[in-house]
Amino acid sequence: MDSTTREDEAAAESAPAESARRQRTRSRLLDAAFDVFAEQGVRAASVETIAEAAGFTRGAFYSNFSSKEELFFALMDREKTTRLEQLETGVARFLTPLVGDGAAELGDAEVVEIITRILELQSDDRRWWLVQTEFQLLALRDPEIAAGFVRYQDDFYRELTETVVAALTSARRRFTIDAEEAVRVIAELCASGEARALLDGDQRRFSERLSESVPAVLLALTRPV
Amino acid sequence: MDSTTREDEAAAESAPAESARRQRTRSRLLDAAFDVFAEQGVRAASVETIAEAAGFTRGAFYSNFSSKEELFFALMDREKTTRLEQLETGVARFLTPLVGDGAAELGDAEVVEIITRILELQSDDRRWWLVQTEFQLLALRDPEIAAGFVRYQDDFYRELTETVVAALTSARRRFTIDAEEAVRVIAELCASGEARALLDGDQRRFSERLSESVPAVLLALTRPV
Repeated sequence: MDSTTREDEAAAESAPAESARRQRTRSRLLDAAFDVFAEQGVRAASVETIAEAAGFTRGAFYSNFSSKEELFFALMDREKTTRLEQLETGVARFLTPLVGDGAAELGDAEVVEIITRILELQSDDRRWWLVQTEFQLLALRDPEIAAGFVRYQDDFYRELTETVVAALTSARRRFTIDAEEAVRVIAELCASGEARALLDGDQRRFSERLSESVPAVLLALTRPV
Repeated sequence: MDSTTREDEAAAESAPAESARRQRTRSRLLDAAFDVFAEQGVRAASVETIAEAAGFTRGAFYSNFSSKEELFFALMDREKTTRLEQLETGVARFLTPLVGDGAAELGDAEVVEIITRILELQSDDRRWWLVQTEFQLLALRDPEIAAGFVRYQDDFYRELTETVVAALTSARRRFTIDAEEAVRVIAELCASGEARALLDGDQRRFSERLSESVPAVLLALTRPV
């Protein structure tokens, strides 16, 4: 938005095009950074390498992000939005049609089936787990990054909890322990599954690997209302 | 053991002393490596730095461990043993006296109290979480280390599950989902609590931070038999 105020009137009519181009540049930098982080590690990845992988100069990088850390937070934000949208799409597609008419309580087998379908929509991104964990380790050695990381995580879990609780409510179930704690437990279960699959070289999809454990834990931590 | 075969007969009678000294050397190297890993990171820590921190030469390091990785696995093994022993001590001290006489079923408040006491005995080692996570990331980029890491984790969870199931059985409770899955969920809950405390600069003890969530999840995942 700041850049618009610096543009002269003659250029003003091209502002939307400029803004769209800027978005594309940022998006390409984020894509390239994700690849470079996953390939070389977050610590080893340089601004130069990221800019080059995106087909830009170092200058183009710095006109979009003040540092590798700022880019990382933009990447986290994009991934957060993507994952929450995938979850909401899954709920709308596979859960809402079954419970919207106030039909009878869902059986356990139906719950397992619905969760598996919803998980199938989620990005199967072991690379994201890897990159995020590396960044978390950097954060542990840098209080400023740590504060941003905790803020991001808290936002993510708050939004995730809202979505999950709304879905459970529509299915007339509720958590038997603190909702955000329960959501964190299930999210950690998914994360440790990603880590394990990476270590094992397990090539199965996210939904296949987790279709037993996630529904089982969700059922164990909820009850019908 | 190999070194013994190289000793001449005259030295054979001093083998136990030699072995004890060797154990002390290994133990000092492990202690020093733990500090250096936590301080500098696992990747950055060199064999020279570890040897020096322990007060030994590089040669002494290599007469005990073939590599930094081999030392790391020895460190993991020591930590595994320590943590399992702490857990068994906690169970023997705080649970067994209450259930050994076949008394009435434990109430939820009692379960919370017992678990908190048992957690208080566990090493409050956020540094261990940090070092282990860094090593896990190295493993993710090296299939040979990955195989060893997975083997270690599987052994740890198998032994941990045996201990936890035995404790639950004595308290006449059982898991409502697969026991090892449940134990992994609770262990991950502890691990993510460590990560969070490190990021937040939370100085409370392990048992304080986890005295709400761990008993709540354990109760939610078990039922009386």
